[in-house]
Amino acid sequence: MSDIIADTADEIRTMRIRGAGRLARAGVNALVCYTQRYTGGTLKSFKEDISRAADIILASRPTAVSLWNGIHETLEEKDLWETLEEALSSVEDRGRTFCSMSEKAASIIAEEGAKMIVDGDVLLTHCNSSAALGIMKEAKRQGKDFKVYATESRPWRQGLITVTELAEADIDVTMIVDSAVRTVMSRINRVFVGADTVTSAGMLINKIGTSQVASAAFEYGVQFDVCTETFKFSPKTLVGETVTIEERGADEVVTGGKVPAKVKVFNPVFDITPSKYINAYVTELGVMSPGSVYGVLASRHENNILRTR
Amino acid sequence: MSDIIADTADEIRTMRIRGAGRLARAGVNALVCYTQRYTGGTLKSFKEDISRAADIILASRPTAVSLWNGIHETLEEKDLWETLEEALSSVEDRGRTFCSMSEKAASIIAEEGAKMIVDGDVLLTHCNSSAALGIMKEAKRQGKDFKVYATESRPWRQGLITVTELAEADIDVTMIVDSAVRTVMSRINRVFVGADTVTSAGMLINKIGTSQVASAAFEYGVQFDVCTETFKFSPKTLVGETVTIEERGADEVVTGGKVPAKVKVFNPVFDITPSKYINAYVTELGVMSPGSVYGVLASRHENNILRTR
Amino acid sequence: MSDIIADTADEIRTMRIRGAGRLARAGVNALVCYTQRYTGGTLKSFKEDISRAADIILASRPTAVSLWNGIHETLEEKDLWETLEEALSSVEDRGRTFCSMSEKAASIIAEEGAKMIVDGDVLLTHCNSSAALGIMKEAKRQGKDFKVYATESRPWRQGLITVTELAEADIDVTMIVDSAVRTVMSRINRVFVGADTVTSAGMLINKIGTSQVASAAFEYGVQFDVCTETFKFSPKTLVGETVTIEERGADEVVTGGKVPAKVKVFNPVFDITPSKYINAYVTELGVMSPGSVYGVLASRHENNILRTR
Amino acid sequence: MSDIIADTADEIRTMRIRGAGRLARAGVNALVCYTQRYTGGTLKSFKEDISRAADIILASRPTAVSLWNGIHETLEEKDLWETLEEALSSVEDRGRTFCSMSEKAASIIAEEGAKMIVDGDVLLTHCNSSAALGIMKEAKRQGKDFKVYATESRPWRQGLITVTELAEADIDVTMIVDSAVRTVMSRINRVFVGADTVTSAGMLINKIGTSQVASAAFEYGVQFDVCTETFKFSPKTLVGETVTIEERGADEVVTGGKVPAKVKVFNPVFDITPSKYINAYVTELGVMSPGSVYGVLASRHENNILRTR
Amino acid sequence: MSDIIADTADEIRTMRIRGAGRLARAGVNALVCYTQRYTGGTLKSFKEDISRAADIILASRPTAVSLWNGIHETLEEKDLWETLEEALSSVEDRGRTFCSMSEKAASIIAEEGAKMIVDGDVLLTHCNSSAALGIMKEAKRQGKDFKVYATESRPWRQGLITVTELAEADIDVTMIVDSAVRTVMSRINRVFVGADTVTSAGMLINKIGTSQVASAAFEYGVQFDVCTETFKFSPKTLVGETVTIEERGADEVVTGGKVPAKVKVFNPVFDITPSKYINAYVTELGVMSPGSVYGVLASRHENNILRTR
Amino acid sequence: MSDIIADTADEIRTMRIRGAGRLARAGVNALVCYTQRYTGGTLKSFKEDISRAADIILASRPTAVSLWNGIHETLEEKDLWETLEEALSSVEDRGRTFCSMSEKAASIIAEEGAKMIVDGDVLLTHCNSSAALGIMKEAKRQGKDFKVYATESRPWRQGLITVTELAEADIDVTMIVDSAVRTVMSRINRVFVGADTVTSAGMLINKIGTSQVASAAFEYGVQFDVCTETFKFSPKTLVGETVTIEERGADEVVTGGKVPAKVKVFNPVFDITPSKYINAYVTELGVMSPGSVYGVLASRHENNILRTR
Repeated sequence: MSDIIADTADEIRTMRIRGAGRLARAGVNALVCYTQRYTGGTLKSFKEDISRAADIILASRPTAVSLWNGIHETLEEKDLWETLEEALSSVEDRGRTFCSMSEKAASIIAEEGAKMIVDGDVLLTHCNSSAALGIMKEAKRQGKDFKVYATESRPWRQGLITVTELAEADIDVTMIVDSAVRTVMSRINRVFVGADTVTSAGMLINKIGTSQVASAAFEYGVQFDVCTETFKFSPKTLVGETVTIEERGADEVVTGGKVPAKVKVFNPVFDITPSKYINAYVTELGVMSPGSVYGVLASRHENNILRTR
Repeated sequence: MSDIIADTADEIRTMRIRGAGRLARAGVNALVCYTQRYTGGTLKSFKEDISRAADIILASRPTAVSLWNGIHETLEEKDLWETLEEALSSVEDRGRTFCSMSEKAASIIAEEGAKMIVDGDVLLTHCNSSAALGIMKEAKRQGKDFKVYATESRPWRQGLITVTELAEADIDVTMIVDSAVRTVMSRINRVFVGADTVTSAGMLINKIGTSQVASAAFEYGVQFDVCTETFKFSPKTLVGETVTIEERGADEVVTGGKVPAKVKVFNPVFDITPSKYINAYVTELGVMSPGSVYGVLASRHENNILRTR
Repeated sequence: MSDIIADTADEIRTMRIRGAGRLARAGVNALVCYTQRYTGGTLKSFKEDISRAADIILASRPTAVSLWNGIHETLEEKDLWETLEEALSSVEDRGRTFCSMSEKAASIIAEEGAKMIVDGDVLLTHCNSSAALGIMKEAKRQGKDFKVYATESRPWRQGLITVTELAEADIDVTMIVDSAVRTVMSRINRVFVGADTVTSAGMLINKIGTSQVASAAFEYGVQFDVCTETFKFSPKTLVGETVTIEERGADEVVTGGKVPAKVKVFNPVFDITPSKYINAYVTELGVMSPGSVYGVLASRHENNILRTR
Repeated sequence: MSDIIADTADEIRTMRIRGAGRLARAGVNALVCYTQRYTGGTLKSFKEDISRAADIILASRPTAVSLWNGIHETLEEKDLWETLEEALSSVEDRGRTFCSMSEKAASIIAEEGAKMIVDGDVLLTHCNSSAALGIMKEAKRQGKDFKVYATESRPWRQGLITVTELAEADIDVTMIVDSAVRTVMSRINRVFVGADTVTSAGMLINKIGTSQVASAAFEYGVQFDVCTETFKFSPKTLVGETVTIEERGADEVVTGGKVPAKVKVFNPVFDITPSKYINAYVTELGVMSPGSVYGVLASRHENNILRTR
Repeated sequence: MSDIIADTADEIRTMRIRGAGRLARAGVNALVCYTQRYTGGTLKSFKEDISRAADIILASRPTAVSLWNGIHETLEEKDLWETLEEALSSVEDRGRTFCSMSEKAASIIAEEGAKMIVDGDVLLTHCNSSAALGIMKEAKRQGKDFKVYATESRPWRQGLITVTELAEADIDVTMIVDSAVRTVMSRINRVFVGADTVTSAGMLINKIGTSQVASAAFEYGVQFDVCTETFKFSPKTLVGETVTIEERGADEVVTGGKVPAKVKVFNPVFDITPSKYINAYVTELGVMSPGSVYGVLASRHENNILRTR
Repeated sequence: MSDIIADTADEIRTMRIRGAGRLARAGVNALVCYTQRYTGGTLKSFKEDISRAADIILASRPTAVSLWNGIHETLEEKDLWETLEEALSSVEDRGRTFCSMSEKAASIIAEEGAKMIVDGDVLLTHCNSSAALGIMKEAKRQGKDFKVYATESRPWRQGLITVTELAEADIDVTMIVDSAVRTVMSRINRVFVGADTVTSAGMLINKIGTSQVASAAFEYGVQFDVCTETFKFSPKTLVGETVTIEERGADEVVTGGKVPAKVKVFNPVFDITPSKYINAYVTELGVMSPGSVYGVLASRHENNILRTR
């Protein structure tokens, strides 16, 4: 296969390229470059080649929803191509549109979410979501006066990164252990978290502990909003696939402690927040309720994943 | 003051004597020894002396409910004393009864709670409660077959002690981070936690995170039981005092992380679990609902704290 | 052993004597008769003989809370007996008091509950509780105008008995299948059910389906009241014993249907209603919340079951 | 009948004597005066005379729980009287004790509740409860810094009295319409309301709208506490009586508006708050959960209302 | 009218054709056949004839949502027809598409739902839904290891058919009475039920007892999924029509029991499950939340039912 | 600017034109008239002139969602105009369509909602919604037999208007104070209220007290439906804007009462009802769940508000 495809797949596989958005754009860009350099083939050969290229890219991180979305949006009109020229320009156009929309999405979300923050607000966030932090930084940039509580987020303690980022943006931030979420909830106005994956029925898969934050927010009548680009919406869940929750090693949890060998550790990376606890998804396509996720996915995929069955 | 009083107060103050039960028994024993050695006084002088001794003991750990309870039970009949002899024997008798009941309480609770465990159960516990662990060990001793999930319990990570204790008792134990409580709750049959303090209206004050465990148990229809000696029932809450939640330093939370100086940390040691989340208190006076705590406290204190107003 | 003891135990064992109240009174009466005829012994021999007699009676239906309660109340002062005469008269007096209180209890409950019914009420009941039906009949006797919905109560269909009893008392009664409870709940004012056993923490053990009725009542803001003599309050639960839920044979469920041999059937007789769904216990000692059950049990048993540990 | 009895009954009937506490003390005082002046009778005649006097007093305001409680506590030992002297001194002693306890109760409750208020608290109250306001004034007197939201309390608008009283005590007070309770609830820490009547199962009967305040507090995780002397605990509910909710005229609601004659008005004075919404009763006998009300009532009335059936 | 129309209507009316899917396809096929044989008319006459034919078919089972949907989808472009040829081919094409989609829908749903089942799952189902059972059989065919609890489903006891079907597919199945649903819910991972009708606001109308199952699942945090072809989505509810709940005779409930003539029986066939209890609809158009039903219906009917007002 | 624009803006500003629907139609009509009279310009000049006209109209009532919607729908194709003729006819056509749809919407909603009412229903409404009352009047016109409870709706007491309107339509209506909502809820079948604004995530902004009504309906399992034209759906909330809740003066609340100057008054006009409490929105585009609002807004605004970022 061409260098650009193989190299990009390699960089993704080895984690040199990370982050849902960057990952998707890198994969799509590889297809665009490959297409631009494509010479001497026929429509038939291009269809085969670009499909193989797409498979290689997808195999480099099979669980990344954003990558799957980028590649499929780029090749969405494949069945409609009638000439090679049409095919080449379709891939280039759709690929560039995806990348530019993806780049714009983060700033659109930041602007939307910032409008929701008013002076005197006390926010809470969990783990380290660039979309959620983007909102807070934009609100601060606009001069809004608010405070943030941030959780430690064991076992990786991404909360340390979060509080550092927020403090550097001059935002008044207070760190708590994950167990203190319910205790501080009566002081909180609004919760902003990010998303790893969103299912077609509106459920959220995100960093372990997110569902506990959502449950506490619900108990205290506090709005719980999820900040996410819609490329985190999972098309596969449309057709019934469930999201596998990754489990990681015991050493992340027991680090520094001496425990008997026979102690087991259960270390799931994500948890599932039911839609009943979610007030809104704040996306680059607007603010929507969990009940609206299906509509976005279905209109986007009615010509591929839903039709090809 | 006498050596025994001063020395005991000192050992309590410097944390050489720890644990709610041991603390209370040490304080009461000091009064009993002091009484046994009391010579040459009158009823009037003894009343004054023993009151002063009690005050010194109480001042050594003013927030310990168990100590307050022990001292007050020992001196409860003070207003009824008519002769010095009566006074001396009253203190001795009541003091010894308190100590022996307190010593028996833990094993009574272990036996009661063990009856609640059946083969195949999956339990969850939070932090490191000797009453809760006593129940599990007793059930294991009786040959029952069950599993336990135990939380890490940040920031002090007493969960490491808990899993070690349980593993040493050959109990099948799995450790999780505090954020994973809700995720495992659908596998759990019953939660056992301990108590720091119980209010007259049946609320529980216990290690930070307890109320979050209780809320998740409630959400999943899982019984949440609190294992505690009744000397954790707080008489002062009878007359309206609220329990102050201790806050500790930032270093316990940010240890090992480098965060900007302006990051604040909120580190409360305890939280409050409302009675609606508590199925039962398992005590040495039997298994009771939160609505029954007042009755126990009121009958015990109708001659002192409730009367003296 | 004496005839009266053996015969009574036999009648209980073979189900010739049934019903929580009749059972308990029969057992206690046997002890009273035995005592009245007791001749030629010493205090010591009587203590041994009456204990043996009690054990025989109790063994005839070991799971009946009311029988246990009757026997133990009758012999409660055993440790205080100082002469044979005192012993004999204690058993006679306490036994008769228990029987007469037990007989009066049903009519007291009927009167209490009837006061709660007002013209226009629509009630619901489940299974066939003599205490609940007694209330309805008393209210009808007083000329009150109300309707009752009664469930079929599969698998035994005791609802057929219930609707017959109510119709014979000229009460307007409508029968529904158990699955229709939630559907009719929006028409209901108040639910009255009976009890098999009540735990010291205020939970109700009653005919399968009761907890589902309670949950539906809770969802619709309808008062759910339990009508029961306090001899259904279980002293053993005070000290941690859990109530074993009897499971019965498959034939009760699949009767009349032809299903493959490999189909399993789970046929529990009772279920557990958590105290959060119970508004009040209507008893011969008055109307109380679940949080008050412990107080009744503890004051009754502080000299035996709670002390003898 | 004697002048003191007739006059007092008259003053109560014509509303010259008002307020649950003052009412009860007036009635009891009348019995005490009558007893002090009692001459020339026998034990038998006194029993008859004092019973008739009690009936006259009770008939002057048959729905007042406090009056019923005062009279019955005063005459509670009637069946034990063996001589006229004993009878006279029993009535005098018990009557005086009731009056003095009743007078002390309000200040005890004020002190208890004031302990629950901490600097920075934001409270909410409904209608005009002297017990709830007493707590706030005591807390202010102690120098505590807090705010209060008070409802208008249509149709009588007692909220106007409440805000005036609080403002005169220099307390920071904000008035809202009854419909705004849920909107402000996210700013509130704790709700204090009074009681008209408390049932033996722990339910609260109080000014219309109270249950809506309680429901909103529950939804937002805010503590809802009821401040009341225990003479509001209704002994009749022990034996099944329900509390009749008074309905008043349409003119209180439509005042000032012109509506067609055929518009109906439903104007209930009180509503019922279920115990699940109540955190605690703050009483002169201490702070208790709704599950503890039965215990207080039962121990007080085990010799009369519960026995005489 | 033509034979094919009359005969089909007759077969539907007399229940020789049953089942939501088969019914709809039979009706649509009749229109297609009628169209294929249509000769010698004009566009105008065809419009009138086909409308009359459609009315006859619809009148044969006026409450069947699937039939209504099939007929209306087949004739949806009626107002756009410009020539007779266009009209004939439109009916044929649309009719065939509907039938083939309807036939495919069941297998698509089975595949989708089967993906949701993982080894070790314990499922519950109510009544006898071919869509729900199709999912379980497909999962079994794929070698998945799971158990199923199935309710009896009084009064018709369709549970007997369900357990037989599942056992014949070698699935581990346990039958329970309807009253035992809440008791087993703590062992259940996921509930799959079918649908009779789905409203535009996402509510489910299904066999009596379904809402009780949903409520218990909600109480225990168990996912409740509805398996249904979208031709059960009711277009008439879009414009406000409510679904009439059929009531059937008393004999279905009291069979085998002798009850007095004056006992009434309420025997509703269906109940309504509110959308708050439904996790997802599993349909041939993908997995969606209740909030997405309107979108599917509105886009399908924006040219007829919504426009023609 | 032209007279028609200036005059209309003036009439709106001075409240001579009121009501969400009339307001929007007046603004749109002004643009249509202005367009019809437009002479002598170019496409470029018309674009500038019509934009300025739109801005003047919008500025006359900046918070009215319906006005914003009308103006934007009228000018929606502005970027597609290629000739002046096309521009003029686009404005005329779209403007007239909006006005006629808006006029039809109210009667469509009345018909839809009337279908939901059945004989014997007891409804409740809050404040004075023309859409909700339109439904009730239409149902009455159809001869349906039902009752209505209507709240007073302090502080403006629009309930007086509501009960008058309903009584004049011969509907059986009962007025209650706002505090009595929860008390009557057990008698209610269905709640119909109107809307001021609906957010893209499905939340309702409506007259103060609405959320309290919704919460009580939820507690009692009563359907809560919102009757509204979709021009109350707020496009700005799509992109994150929050709805500002107007606060009005103290005099509206304290009228007629004498309170100290230092008493503050908080008088918000609207409150926010979360989507979890809303069963359905009854609109001229059909009956939908809160989760469907986004879809309606997004499809309507994908070419302007969502694209122009």
